[in-house]
Amino acid sequence: MLKGNAIVGQSGGPTAAINATLAGVIRGALAAECIGTVYGMRNGIEGLLEERVVDLGKLFGSEDDLKILEQTPAAALGSCRKKLPKPDSEDGADKELYRRLFEILEGLNIRYFFYIGGNDSMDTVAKLSVYAEKAGVEMRIVGVPKTIDNDLALTDHTPGFGSAAKYIATTMSEIIRDCSVYKVKAVTIVEIMGRDAGWLTASSAIGRVVNGFSPDYVYLPERSFDMESFYSDIEKAFEKHPNVVVAVSEGLRFADGRYVGEGTQSGVTDAFGHKYLAGTGKALEMSVREHFGCKARSVELNLPQRCAGHLISLTDIEESVKIGRSAVEAAVTGVSGVVMVFRRAEGEKYVCEIDSASVRGIANVTRYVPDEFITEDNNNVTDSCCEYLLPLIKGEYPIKYRDGMPVHAIIE
Amino acid sequence: MLKGNAIVGQSGGPTAAINATLAGVIRGALAAECIGTVYGMRNGIEGLLEERVVDLGKLFGSEDDLKILEQTPAAALGSCRKKLPKPDSEDGADKELYRRLFEILEGLNIRYFFYIGGNDSMDTVAKLSVYAEKAGVEMRIVGVPKTIDNDLALTDHTPGFGSAAKYIATTMSEIIRDCSVYKVKAVTIVEIMGRDAGWLTASSAIGRVVNGFSPDYVYLPERSFDMESFYSDIEKAFEKHPNVVVAVSEGLRFADGRYVGEGTQSGVTDAFGHKYLAGTGKALEMSVREHFGCKARSVELNLPQRCAGHLISLTDIEESVKIGRSAVEAAVTGVSGVVMVFRRAEGEKYVCEIDSASVRGIANVTRYVPDEFITEDNNNVTDSCCEYLLPLIKGEYPIKYRDGMPVHAIIE
Repeated sequence: MLKGNAIVGQSGGPTAAINATLAGVIRGALAAECIGTVYGMRNGIEGLLEERVVDLGKLFGSEDDLKILEQTPAAALGSCRKKLPKPDSEDGADKELYRRLFEILEGLNIRYFFYIGGNDSMDTVAKLSVYAEKAGVEMRIVGVPKTIDNDLALTDHTPGFGSAAKYIATTMSEIIRDCSVYKVKAVTIVEIMGRDAGWLTASSAIGRVVNGFSPDYVYLPERSFDMESFYSDIEKAFEKHPNVVVAVSEGLRFADGRYVGEGTQSGVTDAFGHKYLAGTGKALEMSVREHFGCKARSVELNLPQRCAGHLISLTDIEESVKIGRSAVEAAVTGVSGVVMVFRRAEGEKYVCEIDSASVRGIANVTRYVPDEFITEDNNNVTDSCCEYLLPLIKGEYPIKYRDGMPVHAIIE
Repeated sequence: MLKGNAIVGQSGGPTAAINATLAGVIRGALAAECIGTVYGMRNGIEGLLEERVVDLGKLFGSEDDLKILEQTPAAALGSCRKKLPKPDSEDGADKELYRRLFEILEGLNIRYFFYIGGNDSMDTVAKLSVYAEKAGVEMRIVGVPKTIDNDLALTDHTPGFGSAAKYIATTMSEIIRDCSVYKVKAVTIVEIMGRDAGWLTASSAIGRVVNGFSPDYVYLPERSFDMESFYSDIEKAFEKHPNVVVAVSEGLRFADGRYVGEGTQSGVTDAFGHKYLAGTGKALEMSVREHFGCKARSVELNLPQRCAGHLISLTDIEESVKIGRSAVEAAVTGVSGVVMVFRRAEGEKYVCEIDSASVRGIANVTRYVPDEFITEDNNNVTDSCCEYLLPLIKGEYPIKYRDGMPVHAIIE
């Protein structure tokens, strides 16, 4: 059994579940007999290079502290977006970076290295594994996925996605309620995150299989966007009711590859001013107002999609904790250079198992919404898509509040 | 004791608590011996003129149904923005409108009329009361306030405001967590509703007295906005930390009266394109990027502020129910032409009592954030402001969920 200390870092964009995974890693490492101190690196690999580390066992000594950590959104250790050089680089500065990194790790007697992040972060895990092996460093290096985008390969879904999906499905149902109060013709366009893959935008439709109402249309970045079809869709919806609500991905593009947010094919192009002014929702809002002459507005769900810690999915948080703990258990049994993944069991009942896979298969790969989840008209998701999504948003985490606000764990 | 039927309507913009007040009116009316059928008008006075009414006793026959109604955001009966003509108008069409309205009410044997709305809706209540008195119609007409804006006169606060404030305070604390993960210099501008009064924007600061963190600055529409002071504020914040977060009201104006969202005094004015492109947050985001050359982004909290039924204040919902019920009780005792109001008792402990006041004192009047709640630098709210706000967001309503989403009551 490999004895020594462990270190864990967080990297990439924040989610509402990344600290739940951190809590899982801490629990697993504190429980492992072969692991001594459990360090946390501040701001990922970037902070590690500056030797900014904390003792997580001291900071989160009780189960109560860990529960607060679980419900805290955004990376409690801080994050970074540093890309490591190739592990076999012959460049002097690159070699020095790796040498220094492993010197710091050696100084802390680290034998277990955990990195929680998206596919850029898994690139870091892959490179460190290659370097360590080449240099003969005895260290177990394991990645744990997180991303609200749900676009990682090899895994059925990603930790953090379920909570974002729950927020989006719920907020969309509330926006639909809000839009339904007047009888005036109006189009409301809700812009949702996910530049390449449409998983988050698809989640806005879950209400359909829960309470029977969902946006009239859902446009994913997996399909090219056509302005005439969009107008024709809205006309059809107006035949049914005056309040039309559509969900659009921030990453929608026209057939020629231009982002919808950059400009449109309609006559209002000139009105956009500078490019950075118009997001996808705003661009479509202006086009609709111009084309139909009706009330139009856009809502960008923005940062709350990834940090709404007050509305997290119990399923997501429990799985996120479990995958963190499983990472430690896997490392203790001897694996390295792997990423932990979720596998959904076959059958009607939702059962999710945790496994590991080679980290090289997940780094820098995007998993898109498959064809069978998108309707033939390219303007909505199928019921089977909603059924895939539904188990991931189920259950409500019992948030601890103080004076009317959720309590957060903060590492100074 | 005046015997007959009751009718209730909802009017103006949606809130997350307006249905809680409806539930209170329904409970009060069903319990009153002198009241027979409890009607609901669809889309307020506008739907009433089209005789679109429902029997609320039948729709919400059980306490379970009423509980679901309480947690449903946005006006379940639908809303309208109709302004009634003067009750003493000599115009033929105006006279006909009043005649027809009271004919419909007489046909339903209405003796109790309740209208839930903001100050435009209280104008409706005032006019109907004057007309009824003049015409010798025996009818008790009572207004019940609602608005997320908290800007009504005579009342300590408004039903619906506490839930919006809780959503804003919580979401702001989550955004601050999200912004804190990187070490890169960045300014995040959060735009909050409230065109004239800054109560909602002020709520973003509540975290300061709960968990010690809140936006660096809070700019209210009660003060004119100065671009140079704003830049200087941000410079000071950068001396303390790299992640600056500010809250701004959508209604901010420069000293010359122009809205900040219409254009700025900085050199980027030309970049705005058409006026409707830039909200206050977006305009300031562009100005900051230009001035500091740093990362800048804006988040518009938008519709969820008023319809986030999943995060409602228990205090607000309980008070909203109670003021609805109290309206019925007041009407039964004989008052008319009044609006129900909240009075906060003196003393440290928060105690809120319900009273009634002449509706003429509330219609068309705006209550602003007072001077003692705004700091001398005009860039934040005082602790006493936070202490006024805090009791209103306390407590969490036990939301009923089904399959991961809150259940809503829908009147078809």
